[in-house]
Amino acid sequence: MSLIVVGSVAYDGVETPHGKVDRMLGGAATYIGLSAAFFTEVKIVAVVGDDFAEEDRGLLASRKIDLTGLERVPGGKTFFWAGKYSPDMNDRETLRTDLNVFADFNPKLPETYRGAPYLFLGNIQPELQRNVRAQMSNVRLTGGDTMNYWINDFRPQLLETLKQWDFLLINDSEARLLSGEYNLLRAAARIMELGPHTLVIKRGEYGAILFRRDGHFMVPGYLLEDVFDPTGAGDSFAGGFIGYLAGRGVSPHDGDIDFAELRRAVIYGSVMGSFCCEKFGVDRFRTLTHAEIEARYQEFKACTAF
Amino acid sequence: MSLIVVGSVAYDGVETPHGKVDRMLGGAATYIGLSAAFFTEVKIVAVVGDDFAEEDRGLLASRKIDLTGLERVPGGKTFFWAGKYSPDMNDRETLRTDLNVFADFNPKLPETYRGAPYLFLGNIQPELQRNVRAQMSNVRLTGGDTMNYWINDFRPQLLETLKQWDFLLINDSEARLLSGEYNLLRAAARIMELGPHTLVIKRGEYGAILFRRDGHFMVPGYLLEDVFDPTGAGDSFAGGFIGYLAGRGVSPHDGDIDFAELRRAVIYGSVMGSFCCEKFGVDRFRTLTHAEIEARYQEFKACTAF
Repeated sequence: MSLIVVGSVAYDGVETPHGKVDRMLGGAATYIGLSAAFFTEVKIVAVVGDDFAEEDRGLLASRKIDLTGLERVPGGKTFFWAGKYSPDMNDRETLRTDLNVFADFNPKLPETYRGAPYLFLGNIQPELQRNVRAQMSNVRLTGGDTMNYWINDFRPQLLETLKQWDFLLINDSEARLLSGEYNLLRAAARIMELGPHTLVIKRGEYGAILFRRDGHFMVPGYLLEDVFDPTGAGDSFAGGFIGYLAGRGVSPHDGDIDFAELRRAVIYGSVMGSFCCEKFGVDRFRTLTHAEIEARYQEFKACTAF
Repeated sequence: MSLIVVGSVAYDGVETPHGKVDRMLGGAATYIGLSAAFFTEVKIVAVVGDDFAEEDRGLLASRKIDLTGLERVPGGKTFFWAGKYSPDMNDRETLRTDLNVFADFNPKLPETYRGAPYLFLGNIQPELQRNVRAQMSNVRLTGGDTMNYWINDFRPQLLETLKQWDFLLINDSEARLLSGEYNLLRAAARIMELGPHTLVIKRGEYGAILFRRDGHFMVPGYLLEDVFDPTGAGDSFAGGFIGYLAGRGVSPHDGDIDFAELRRAVIYGSVMGSFCCEKFGVDRFRTLTHAEIEARYQEFKACTAF
C-alpha cells in the first residue's frame, strides 16, 4: 500500500577509507524511498534546486517512486552535505552543510498523496513533521526519525509531534538524549510513554532493538567483509522497515500490531541497511534484486537461530 | 563429563557506579568454575596464599568443584586486583595488581585430573597453558582465553599454544590485535588458520559471535536494567560455554563439531555472563538456580527468533 516519505533529497560528498566521491545523489528521503520501493509503492515529498540532475530523477522514477511531491525551486540549489569517515568508519566528521533550498522546505502534499495509509517522516523540524500528518486524511501508520538537534533545541515541538506517532526509529545516542536514561531498557520505556507504541533503536554495526510495551526483539548487525560507505545505512534500514510493513498492509488494531510482522520488518530493515554499505552512496540499489534481499533475510535466520 | 579449569583464583577490589567492595572473591578460574559447575563436574587448578578464606573455599566446594588442584602457598598472599569502572561501565581502570603467589604459578595437574576429557585454559602465560595440556592423557576438547599482553609480548609462544586448541574465546579488540585485521570476518578467518576450528569473539554489551570455518552465529547482548558489576562476565560466559559442551559430552568428530550444540553453548555463555553482572563479584552465583538459567535461555529465544 502507498507509503509517503518526507525528507531530504540531496547531494553528498563522501570520503571513506575506500575512496572519495565529490558529489553523488543522497538525502534521507532518497535512501528511504529507494529502499522502501523494493517492498511497496512510494511517494516522495522533498525539495530540490534546478541543479538536480535528470539522471538522478530518473533513478528514482525507474523504481516507480511517485515524484509528484518532489518540488523543484527555480534558481535554487539542492541541499549539499560533505563528510569524512574515521578509519574504522564508526565516526564521521561533517565538512560542509549547505542547506540551500532545504532551508525553506515546507512540505505540502499533492492531492493524490493525501489518502495514503502509511507515512514516514524523515528527520526535519518536528512542527513540519506534524503539519504533514495534518494534511493526510486516512493515515493508518505514522512514524519517523529525528536527531540530536531537534531533541535539544526543539524538544516541546518534538514531544507534541511524537504524541501522534505509532513508531520512532532513532539511534542509541538519540534515545539516551531523548529519554535522559543511559540504560536502553529504561530509555525505551520512557520514550514509549511519549506516544509511539513501537520503538526501533539502531546501533550501527551492532544491529538494532525493537521495543514494544510487552517485550523486545534484538537483531545483531550483519557482518560485512567490506563496508565501503555507511552513508544512508540508517535511512535504508528505515525504508526496509516501513516499506515491509506498508507492503504487507500491516496496521494496528486497538493500538496493537502484529509483533511477528514487526520482527520481520526489523530484519528487512537490517538487510537493506547492510546492502547500502556495500557500495558508495545509493549505488548498491541500482543493481539490487529481490532474490538477493530474500537470500540475505535467510542468512540472518541462519546466523541467529538456535 | 569432567572439565579442568586452569587460571587465577584471586581477591578483587571493585568500584562501579553502584558501589564499592574493597575485597571479594574473584579471579578467572573462580568465575569460570562457578559458572561451568551449573552444567558439569569441574576441577580447578590454581594457586592461593594462606590468606585465602575458608568461606571462599567453602563456596567453591559447595558447588562440588574439585579443589585438589588448588595449591596453597604457605606464607604467600593471594593474587589481588583492584579496578574502577567508568560511569557507563564500558571501560575500567586498573588501580592495583599484586600478583603475589600467582607470579610463580606453574600449574601441575593432580593425578586424578589427568584423564579428564575437557580443558579450559584461562588467561595465563601461553607456555604454561601448553604445559598443562601436555600433562593430560585423554583430552577431547581444549581451548581457552588469552589477553593483549601475551598477544603482544609472547606471540611466538602463543601461536605455538593455539595450534593445539579446538576453540579460543577472546574479545573483539584482542581478536583484532591477534589477527592484524580490523574487520571481524577477516580477523576470524585469520585466527582459525592458527589452529582453533571454533572461535568465540565476545563483544561485551553487544553480545558475541561464534565463528566456524563454514559459517558463524551471532547473539546480541542480554539487556539488563541494572549492570551492577561487569567483573567476571567474560569468564562466566566462558564457563557457561565450555560447561555446557562438557555437560553434554560434545566432542569433535574428524575435526568437526555439532554446530547446533555450539550455538546453544554460546547462548548458555551469554546467559551466565548476564547473570554475573546482576550483583557484585560472584554474589549472583550464590543464589542462582537451574530454573533461572533455563528461563533466561528461553528469554534469549523469545528476543531473537523471527
